[in-house]
Amino acid sequence: MRLNHLTTLTLAAAISAALPAAYAATIRAPAELPAKQTVADVIKASTPADWRPLDPQQTLYMDTALGRVIIELAPEFAPKHVANIKALVAEQYYDGLAITRAQDNWVAQWGDADEKNPKPIKHAQRTLPGEFTVPMKNVTSFTRLKDIDGYAPQVGHSNGFASARDPKSGTAWLTHCYATVGVGRDVGSDSGGGTELYAVIGQSPRHLDRDITVVGRVVSGMPLLATLPRGTAPMGFYDSPEKTVPIKSVRLAADLPLDQRVQMEVMRTDSAAYQAVLEAQRNRGGPWSKVQAGHIDLCNAPIPVREVGK
Amino acid sequence: MRLNHLTTLTLAAAISAALPAAYAATIRAPAELPAKQTVADVIKASTPADWRPLDPQQTLYMDTALGRVIIELAPEFAPKHVANIKALVAEQYYDGLAITRAQDNWVAQWGDADEKNPKPIKHAQRTLPGEFTVPMKNVTSFTRLKDIDGYAPQVGHSNGFASARDPKSGTAWLTHCYATVGVGRDVGSDSGGGTELYAVIGQSPRHLDRDITVVGRVVSGMPLLATLPRGTAPMGFYDSPEKTVPIKSVRLAADLPLDQRVQMEVMRTDSAAYQAVLEAQRNRGGPWSKVQAGHIDLCNAPIPVREVGK
Repeated sequence: MRLNHLTTLTLAAAISAALPAAYAATIRAPAELPAKQTVADVIKASTPADWRPLDPQQTLYMDTALGRVIIELAPEFAPKHVANIKALVAEQYYDGLAITRAQDNWVAQWGDADEKNPKPIKHAQRTLPGEFTVPMKNVTSFTRLKDIDGYAPQVGHSNGFASARDPKSGTAWLTHCYATVGVGRDVGSDSGGGTELYAVIGQSPRHLDRDITVVGRVVSGMPLLATLPRGTAPMGFYDSPEKTVPIKSVRLAADLPLDQRVQMEVMRTDSAAYQAVLEAQRNRGGPWSKVQAGHIDLCNAPIPVREVGK
Repeated sequence: MRLNHLTTLTLAAAISAALPAAYAATIRAPAELPAKQTVADVIKASTPADWRPLDPQQTLYMDTALGRVIIELAPEFAPKHVANIKALVAEQYYDGLAITRAQDNWVAQWGDADEKNPKPIKHAQRTLPGEFTVPMKNVTSFTRLKDIDGYAPQVGHSNGFASARDPKSGTAWLTHCYATVGVGRDVGSDSGGGTELYAVIGQSPRHLDRDITVVGRVVSGMPLLATLPRGTAPMGFYDSPEKTVPIKSVRLAADLPLDQRVQMEVMRTDSAAYQAVLEAQRNRGGPWSKVQAGHIDLCNAPIPVREVGK
């Protein structure tokens, strides 16, 4: 087993191998791009003002048998659903439920999958009318990407969330990218309420945008969700309860003592530093990169997160 | 544990829950879209002429300790690398190597990660000049998507592979989508040759297009690669040899007796059926969907694959 020195996609040490002459004559090596700052460089050079702490009133800790997933909620985009999910959390509704679905290149889903014999709810709502879009004026921040998008007239970031908007209809919505968290529903647009939630674990399914209520995104724990064994029942559901992953508890960070909270920060997506992150990804410098993409897709825009003191 | 009836993103049975009146007054339910054929409907209605068998001369079976991954090679887009990988397979180079890297929302990678003490090669080349693009005229088929793309002037499908081209420079290339297989390299554009290969396991990293040699795609076994535990060393490499996943063998289908080959078919991407697949995904009908996306991203275009007789 060989692993002492890693040949990688991005490692700076080149293999010094002579070109076979037959190829060298016919294929011209691309010209070298000048080096420029990377996303890591931008993060390193950032100042405290470029970051915001996660709001404990909008942060969920989901503790499962496999570990913790941390979710940031986006109340501006789904006020009633976020309030309802927090009400479900307050009555410890999710505790003892499970991750019931993992479909490859699609979603992991958790909550109560039992329609016939649903888990009782004390105070929260079981279902709500969908909040698929909100009035643009309700969204306090939007930093538009200059890059084109096929799914929406305008895309960019709102307070750390990938989002889109349509000035013609005056509506805005969160987009489905990797780690986006949404509310499972049935056929009716009013058939979801938060008793089942999903996170995107593959290629961004942007065709779900404006068709389902999005409530936030996973800021820590994606590897846990993305590596779940795929379910073998239709749509990636687990075919027996034994295969599901128990949820021990879901708690609001604000409901925990300060010393039990994870101190996390998210780069402000309305900062100059974040513009530099986007540009570092949009047009990467040499020497590894030979070509600049000249474009960044909304769902390829990294939103840096860090744990304070780590 | 509740799992007898599945509440899902797409299941047709609606929960019959009365609308809370306070919401009903302020939020209007979206109008229902007429039903139309789904991707599954198109596949069901397809005829044998809409499918092609996998070419055994361009099909690799990689058998690992966790199961099999089947890869279709694309010789038109990387003729020298595909020939070299087949030469490596012929001399059983990959047998006994391992999957050495799994980075979340990025790639799984396998082969020889040891630069200092590389596994000897008998007849194949260790490195080749990169085949990042090829002349457009070398590509025998291109069915263009009508949808816009931020990364390339034209995108579409060539013989079952997502691809792009630029008429101005006269070049074509395979694009990085979920399941795309490429050739790991170091800084030099001539530093890869196939001793390390990777597959995309997350959001499509289209900014790698034209910067690395792409040789094909995984047509079976993505769940195996996508659920690998993420490596904890830099860039998702496993931090000890014990964590890597041994490769038992990699074989060319054509080198196996007929009864040991998996009979698979891929939908022809130049067929009318495939246009119907694209349209079913681009503009989904009701009743579940309330809004049509009106767009399909190249990497959201499913390329149907089926095992014959299953």
